Amino acid sequence: MTIADQVQDFARTENADAVPSPTDEDFKIPDEGVPEPQRKAVLDKLENYFTDLQGRFLGYQTNEDLKLREPMARFLDYHFNNVGDPFEDSHFTLHTRWAERAVLDYYAKLWNAKPRTKVNGEVPKDAYWGYVLTMGSSEGNNYALWNARDYLSGKTLMREPAEGGGAQYVWVQDTAPAHNQNAYSPVAFYSHDTHYSVAKALRVLNIPNFYEVGTKLYPYANPLNDGPWDHEVPSEGGDSGPGSIDIDKLATLVEFFARMGHPVIVNLNYGSTFKGAYDDVAAVCERLRPIFAKYGLDKRKVRYGRDENGNELVDERTGHWIHVDGALAATYAPFIEKLVKAGGTKASTPPPTFDFRVPEVASIVTSGHKYPGAPWPCGVFMTKANLQMQPPEQPAVIGSPDTTFGGSRNAFSPLIMWHFLAKHSQNDQMAMIRNALEVTDHAEEKLKALGSTWEAARTPLALTVRFKQPSPDLVHKYSLATVPLKVGDDVVHYAHLYVMPHVTKEMIDELAADLAKSTPYTMPKQRGGVDLTTYVDGSAETGDIARLALVHLSGNAF
Amino acid sequence: MTIADQVQDFARTENADAVPSPTDEDFKIPDEGVPEPQRKAVLDKLENYFTDLQGRFLGYQTNEDLKLREPMARFLDYHFNNVGDPFEDSHFTLHTRWAERAVLDYYAKLWNAKPRTKVNGEVPKDAYWGYVLTMGSSEGNNYALWNARDYLSGKTLMREPAEGGGAQYVWVQDTAPAHNQNAYSPVAFYSHDTHYSVAKALRVLNIPNFYEVGTKLYPYANPLNDGPWDHEVPSEGGDSGPGSIDIDKLATLVEFFARMGHPVIVNLNYGSTFKGAYDDVAAVCERLRPIFAKYGLDKRKVRYGRDENGNELVDERTGHWIHVDGALAATYAPFIEKLVKAGGTKASTPPPTFDFRVPEVASIVTSGHKYPGAPWPCGVFMTKANLQMQPPEQPAVIGSPDTTFGGSRNAFSPLIMWHFLAKHSQNDQMAMIRNALEVTDHAEEKLKALGSTWEAARTPLALTVRFKQPSPDLVHKYSLATVPLKVGDDVVHYAHLYVMPHVTKEMIDELAADLAKSTPYTMPKQRGGVDLTTYVDGSAETGDIARLALVHLSGNAF
Repeated sequence: MTIADQVQDFARTENADAVPSPTDEDFKIPDEGVPEPQRKAVLDKLENYFTDLQGRFLGYQTNEDLKLREPMARFLDYHFNNVGDPFEDSHFTLHTRWAERAVLDYYAKLWNAKPRTKVNGEVPKDAYWGYVLTMGSSEGNNYALWNARDYLSGKTLMREPAEGGGAQYVWVQDTAPAHNQNAYSPVAFYSHDTHYSVAKALRVLNIPNFYEVGTKLYPYANPLNDGPWDHEVPSEGGDSGPGSIDIDKLATLVEFFARMGHPVIVNLNYGSTFKGAYDDVAAVCERLRPIFAKYGLDKRKVRYGRDENGNELVDERTGHWIHVDGALAATYAPFIEKLVKAGGTKASTPPPTFDFRVPEVASIVTSGHKYPGAPWPCGVFMTKANLQMQPPEQPAVIGSPDTTFGGSRNAFSPLIMWHFLAKHSQNDQMAMIRNALEVTDHAEEKLKALGSTWEAARTPLALTVRFKQPSPDLVHKYSLATVPLKVGDDVVHYAHLYVMPHVTKEMIDELAADLAKSTPYTMPKQRGGVDLTTYVDGSAETGDIARLALVHLSGNAF
Repeated sequence: MTIADQVQDFARTENADAVPSPTDEDFKIPDEGVPEPQRKAVLDKLENYFTDLQGRFLGYQTNEDLKLREPMARFLDYHFNNVGDPFEDSHFTLHTRWAERAVLDYYAKLWNAKPRTKVNGEVPKDAYWGYVLTMGSSEGNNYALWNARDYLSGKTLMREPAEGGGAQYVWVQDTAPAHNQNAYSPVAFYSHDTHYSVAKALRVLNIPNFYEVGTKLYPYANPLNDGPWDHEVPSEGGDSGPGSIDIDKLATLVEFFARMGHPVIVNLNYGSTFKGAYDDVAAVCERLRPIFAKYGLDKRKVRYGRDENGNELVDERTGHWIHVDGALAATYAPFIEKLVKAGGTKASTPPPTFDFRVPEVASIVTSGHKYPGAPWPCGVFMTKANLQMQPPEQPAVIGSPDTTFGGSRNAFSPLIMWHFLAKHSQNDQMAMIRNALEVTDHAEEKLKALGSTWEAARTPLALTVRFKQPSPDLVHKYSLATVPLKVGDDVVHYAHLYVMPHVTKEMIDELAADLAKSTPYTMPKQRGGVDLTTYVDGSAETGDIARLALVHLSGNAF
């Protein structure tokens, strides 16, 4: 029985006065369909359940203050679609590219990227490029790391003569030079506090992390210690620390692989999932810059064919890609910075610089459904036009070049994101984040005042406070996210609350009052079935089996 | 200037009475935000533009008959999210898994998959597993092919003892046996009429197609002819044919790579993008079955470690994965079959069998926003539980195992898909598709009656009719999708219309009347800038450059 089951059980049996949850039975579809009144009844039940829980929704970093029904309901009667590139027109007339471009321009300015304003009729090569995501930040992380992989592994989309005349577009790949067989074998780095979707994206893309490459090619050479390779870059102070990446250890690891000739992909977190920590992107890049230069990763030549005179066709590229997963904080941290500069908050230093002011930053992703708020996942991916692997000027005949991750793209999301940005002035945004910081300060105070039993803790400037996991009924009542952390040799179960714009001091006080009346939850021994935290198949320590990656059971969350 | 630009130009300058399209200027976001009346005004303008075009929307396979505002508007005021597995509970209380499971059960029954009904308290190993997609069928194709790759390349997620006690979950990979170095190197096959997103998914996943492997490893051994390897499996009759895969040629190619020891991934189309063609999935599998058996691809052993007694841990798997991209037709073809069986249509044979009745079919994808209709992209992915690479029973502590492609998942889409299925009885569904077939018959008749100038053509039982591309104003007026096809040595520009449930005979008649008054469009020579259909960089025919894949400029579309 999983914890979630226990929570559900509890909700069903002991919370008799709670608003009833819908069931599978309610939604069953018989051959003769479901008549309208019954469809309405089940949707009513779902909405009542939502209304009840939304008023106490504290555990996840999604804003529940939307009020989108009134302005947006009418668009539910259309299918519209932004298939293709945001900056190219399409024959699919029902689209919202105008709104999408407004959203992208907004984030480009917020993140100090170069605008796409034409100079002599052309978009500058180092102007930003991006698009509004359909799946949320996971799609953006996938897209960024895909681009990074192809860029660093020497791939190019080139145009050569087709057999029947005209041009044909072919993906080609440079071969590694004889003096460095690793030149096109990128290695990825990410910290222990990184969201599981980044590790997943790397597996999807077949990009090995330093653990896999280290274990396979350099088993006795771990530069951090004499033991086996770490699975991830350690976070400062481990699970008991603030959640940011250990820059010294990252630099040591990166230098080892740069010396072995590998290009480097680094994923950095800006607003980590469980602790809301900010990796110091600017400091990381400053630290890695001389390492990149020393091993020729600052500038490399990638071949992709020969011109008609037999000269090599060559593209100049870096040998590194720094990606910032700013799913949570890249939307609001710029306003903390503005607030600090304006003296509008008690904090005297803003969170670290993470945006395109740092020259090595190649891509940034943020979510639209977290801090800003949206009914479904969405977000923004941004890079520089000259780092795109897909040519922005693909053939005229396609109408709308295929530059994004999927085919069809959600065109409703750009409207939702536009609405938030248009509704809130820069000053409103500063006021919103000041309020969120104040409510989080309040939460930190209230939860710490409960005494050491609850072990309340907060990473500086984070919008989250963590504390020991309470009983299943409280986890359900406040929709708390829970996560096991390793503290020494023990696994300790924590929960956290997130202060999104809908969260008020009253909601925090209600939770604090409930916690005061109870004690942290003691995880029961597994009842029935197999205990999956201890069940083992056997050992993979055998000659024929290669080890690829660890799947995390502790330390990060939704 | 692209065709899309020309169409826009035309719309702006010559169609003075058309409803005005929104502009970038309309959506600009100044620092002080956009006041409410102005926000409403720009959304009004967008809606007017949508209303105008929706009434004549003929070119794309998306249903515009939605009427979702009334039942669904209220849910725009909540963020809800199906993060994690559809069959596991989560602490994220605001979700719609009940509706998602109802939708999945419906499609499982429609596609003759084994239900998840528990037997002796357990879900059968060969029961279906699936989830509702956030990105539409591209996500499903990516997910299916990812699973196929890991399954066929000998990867396993295994559980071994962790250092501090308990279990840890590690991805491992079997090494190829000495007698067959290709045993874990899958090769992919897809036809010329395949949507570009499949080729893109293979690149994302680093799965080579037969062109790449053939060119690199077996340059002189193309079994189809003496020349270089084809880029894709030929379609029957090439661009002038009906659009279905050439089964003889597919079998010849698959047998070649099976003989070389490779496992095999085949993508089949069910309702191809441009011609609406149905690959004969059942016939393909019947043809490949003896080939798989002959080369030991029907059953293989994959090692993933040793148990405590030193015995090898082994998983039994097939060496093939047949994926059906049924984005368009997998939703309605089952109802054509029912209709034919009931004698309710003039067609005497249904489209080919494509579903889980064919034992080799490993995964099916379909879109929710195409034939059924939804405001944004969505769909269903389905496979069998025993083919999943992600363990359905991941650790209790996570609450909701991470079995899907992304992190956050759109939980509104299951409601939309549920609403369609609940609203339409099985008989309604049969009536809907009968009507769509009749309207397509009508369109075929009307367009063929225009004479040979327009070259109207239709693939049997397809919901689309293709014809020569008309002028830009008509392309815009009816939102037509256009595509260049190779006919002999010439490139001929075609358009198509798609009969989705919102399309009426009157809409067809209006288009036919407009076509009757005009002539096919002659593509102008490129004006200004570089002509990207003829521009070449040079040649990739040089020793250091590996050729990976062709990017299609003709033959398929949105």
